[in-house]
Amino acid sequence: MSDALNAPAPTSRRDFVRRGVLAAAVPATLSLLDACRKAGAEPVAAAAAAPVAPSSARDKADAMDAMHEAGIKAFPAKTAAMGNRLFEPRMEKGVKVFDLTVEQIDWEVTPGEKKKAWAYNGQIPGPQIRVREGDRVRVNVANRLEQSTAVHFHGLELPNAMDGVPFITQPPIKPGDSFTYEFTAPNPGSHMYHSHHNSAEQVGMGLLGAFIIEPKRPDPAHRADVDYVMILNDGPHGYTLNGKGFPATEPIVARRGQTVRIRFMNEGMMIHPMHLHGMHMTIICRDGWGLAVPQRCDTMNIAPGERWDVLVKANNPGTWAFHCHILPHAESQHGMYGMVTALIVK
Amino acid sequence: MSDALNAPAPTSRRDFVRRGVLAAAVPATLSLLDACRKAGAEPVAAAAAAPVAPSSARDKADAMDAMHEAGIKAFPAKTAAMGNRLFEPRMEKGVKVFDLTVEQIDWEVTPGEKKKAWAYNGQIPGPQIRVREGDRVRVNVANRLEQSTAVHFHGLELPNAMDGVPFITQPPIKPGDSFTYEFTAPNPGSHMYHSHHNSAEQVGMGLLGAFIIEPKRPDPAHRADVDYVMILNDGPHGYTLNGKGFPATEPIVARRGQTVRIRFMNEGMMIHPMHLHGMHMTIICRDGWGLAVPQRCDTMNIAPGERWDVLVKANNPGTWAFHCHILPHAESQHGMYGMVTALIVK
Amino acid sequence: MSDALNAPAPTSRRDFVRRGVLAAAVPATLSLLDACRKAGAEPVAAAAAAPVAPSSARDKADAMDAMHEAGIKAFPAKTAAMGNRLFEPRMEKGVKVFDLTVEQIDWEVTPGEKKKAWAYNGQIPGPQIRVREGDRVRVNVANRLEQSTAVHFHGLELPNAMDGVPFITQPPIKPGDSFTYEFTAPNPGSHMYHSHHNSAEQVGMGLLGAFIIEPKRPDPAHRADVDYVMILNDGPHGYTLNGKGFPATEPIVARRGQTVRIRFMNEGMMIHPMHLHGMHMTIICRDGWGLAVPQRCDTMNIAPGERWDVLVKANNPGTWAFHCHILPHAESQHGMYGMVTALIVK
Repeated sequence: MSDALNAPAPTSRRDFVRRGVLAAAVPATLSLLDACRKAGAEPVAAAAAAPVAPSSARDKADAMDAMHEAGIKAFPAKTAAMGNRLFEPRMEKGVKVFDLTVEQIDWEVTPGEKKKAWAYNGQIPGPQIRVREGDRVRVNVANRLEQSTAVHFHGLELPNAMDGVPFITQPPIKPGDSFTYEFTAPNPGSHMYHSHHNSAEQVGMGLLGAFIIEPKRPDPAHRADVDYVMILNDGPHGYTLNGKGFPATEPIVARRGQTVRIRFMNEGMMIHPMHLHGMHMTIICRDGWGLAVPQRCDTMNIAPGERWDVLVKANNPGTWAFHCHILPHAESQHGMYGMVTALIVK
Repeated sequence: MSDALNAPAPTSRRDFVRRGVLAAAVPATLSLLDACRKAGAEPVAAAAAAPVAPSSARDKADAMDAMHEAGIKAFPAKTAAMGNRLFEPRMEKGVKVFDLTVEQIDWEVTPGEKKKAWAYNGQIPGPQIRVREGDRVRVNVANRLEQSTAVHFHGLELPNAMDGVPFITQPPIKPGDSFTYEFTAPNPGSHMYHSHHNSAEQVGMGLLGAFIIEPKRPDPAHRADVDYVMILNDGPHGYTLNGKGFPATEPIVARRGQTVRIRFMNEGMMIHPMHLHGMHMTIICRDGWGLAVPQRCDTMNIAPGERWDVLVKANNPGTWAFHCHILPHAESQHGMYGMVTALIVK
Repeated sequence: MSDALNAPAPTSRRDFVRRGVLAAAVPATLSLLDACRKAGAEPVAAAAAAPVAPSSARDKADAMDAMHEAGIKAFPAKTAAMGNRLFEPRMEKGVKVFDLTVEQIDWEVTPGEKKKAWAYNGQIPGPQIRVREGDRVRVNVANRLEQSTAVHFHGLELPNAMDGVPFITQPPIKPGDSFTYEFTAPNPGSHMYHSHHNSAEQVGMGLLGAFIIEPKRPDPAHRADVDYVMILNDGPHGYTLNGKGFPATEPIVARRGQTVRIRFMNEGMMIHPMHLHGMHMTIICRDGWGLAVPQRCDTMNIAPGERWDVLVKANNPGTWAFHCHILPHAESQHGMYGMVTALIVK
């Protein structure tokens, strides 16, 4: 179905920064960049690292630009772990079994910026579940948090007892306890799984992941070479794409002429209108349901809980900014951060 | 046209809480729940009611869970009055006459939580006006507030003098004065009426209601067994559905196989992406205008001023959570609240 | 293509205020209105200007109403300069050349309310660029700010080097320096140009404008008599339509029977659901791309970065309020302000 499943090869800094000029006096390490980003920090902090005091407008501009450049040169910056990795199920008598452990971890959002987090199997987003319509699926949840939890399969039309809402469809899964969900994969599409107990806090802290059900009879018009899931969040870990803030976000890479499918999912508390430079997106699915008439756009607004699938024909070579167009979610005076990544067409 | 007009039979607590276990030591009264919800209140408040001091993680989890359970067990909680009741017009020589009195009241948002409010006929939302395309309609407005007001019929394509905007189409209706609107019901669909004077305050305080014009020639594809209006608001009364916060919100009830039409209307200041569990929604109208191609979804984002009509085929039995997916509008550490209700399929 | 290109004749105050009664004792100057709008100002400020002390509810209501009336009577209020003026290019050997100077100015948002701003050619929005699909276009940018900048052509599918993102596609344009963009006008539609360097600040401060590419083969269904661009913003200059707050916003004027095309563009940080009274809008394009099936509505929600084109059949005579339906963006206790204008059908 696709050549690359969420595993685009990272580009080198040399490939990415095609026309930039490195201000050698400014350390490219993110520690500077992070320091500058703290509330109240002034551009003068970076200027202090520059060889000349910011006595003129040009010097001040150079100091600001150096911070912007440092962020971009660092992209894609390496962090300790990535989320949203493809989840290989165990097979048990024809059932695809996924074991989820819910636990507290430290999560590196950008290099050096570690946050207390709650995660499925140590990943944010949790491991990406992909099954086929009609598959028998079992999800074993072991709760190692200090509070109860429950897993809701957002978008899946399941029997009520498997819906994951404490005191409505099941008791909460207490600390130390386990719970097993089992069902036949229903309506295909781009769905999610996440906590549905104390959810404003638990989802914000990281208890979320993609749950994709591939259709038995795929629509030929939806064929793609690259299939990419992009989960948006805006809780205590800041503005993130798949659990990371720029420059630690992951670029999407395609060869010229390939078709890229992007599955946007919003697990945050705000809308995020994602804007792609250089090429348009063709909207093909909403909440997993196909559009009878696909619609083109370049800015795809995703509200909390929504999923939108788009196709991009990667026909314009280059490195293209791809970011939330609520600009304070993507850039400050100290450079790009948060909900920014790139589509790289080789 | 429909069996049930906004009058679903409330379910018993026993029916609703199908699998929960009651923590008997925790009072199920909402007064506890409300107390816990106050800003700054700590979970320890509830824990104090538990038989054992919260010496362990498990005890703390139990205390938190008890608060969550108490809220759900209380649903649907009884409050002093409900809004959005069907408005029976007086007939005067072939004209459907609706008398609206605008006045200050106390409005019980959740049990025991009374707020100063401004209301049409003592209801929030105001009484639901339903007429037929082509009907002659008269609306008499008597202003008993201490400030001027005016009524705008949002979505209705009326003659300019009936548009309800002070100093543009009419003088404001002064305290103690009256004003009469009269017109022939124009474009059918799900519309609204609300204040258009000092509106950010007056609409927030409760001066709003549904104005539905049923079409002369209904689209057979829009036929429904249950026809439900859901007005969203987020002003000084908190996050509300039809003027109430969970657990005082009203469940929607359908028999298996029935079709439910939901008319979402947003009178607030924020988007509210309403997420239905267990079944999808099929979008059929936007601002009262039919969609040439209906679209399925499970999360319906409604912006302020918008109306969206959806159909739900109630084919999945059970009690299904139905809530705003901006999670802090629906749940806190102390349990569900605000924009939460349920679709109950019997 | 259209009779009127963003140059509707302003109506007189007499035409606009059709039924209002002027409270002669209250000065109609905006200075009062502005004074009342300041944070912390109380209605008593206006009441002080009234002939009678606010000893009764009626007096207080009169004082509030007088402020509301003063704002509406002042509309459309004159300010020092208007933005979004049609940009006549120089022709150089078949190339349409647009010279943009980026500089700091004082911008009058409402009468007497001057704000520090950054602008293209002294206008906010910058001058409106309109070219035809396939035109050769050159944009010379001279940076007279005290910080670097760059211009991104939002929505245009350009060669990567012309995309305007510092350190990804070009070096930043330093203070005092210039940069030339040159390309063939690609995909037609309603697009934008704006800063893509320190953009959350620079776009908020005014570095934005419309970039419209008219199609070689226009869709006959999109024909309009009046073609109006409406750019929404919500940064340090407040809630604005084309850089102005009510009552300094510009009315849209049409003769009865004409078709008005409105090109909504959002350069702010928030959604703005624009609600038109009296007539519906038919959505025809999203981000410049035609809709296969146009959709009617009366509230057009525009997210940051999005463009939506609608047609209005001006068949309902009168002056119609046209405003953001997030009510605090359009009205306070002191009257309408911010994102309010009118469609006047003569």
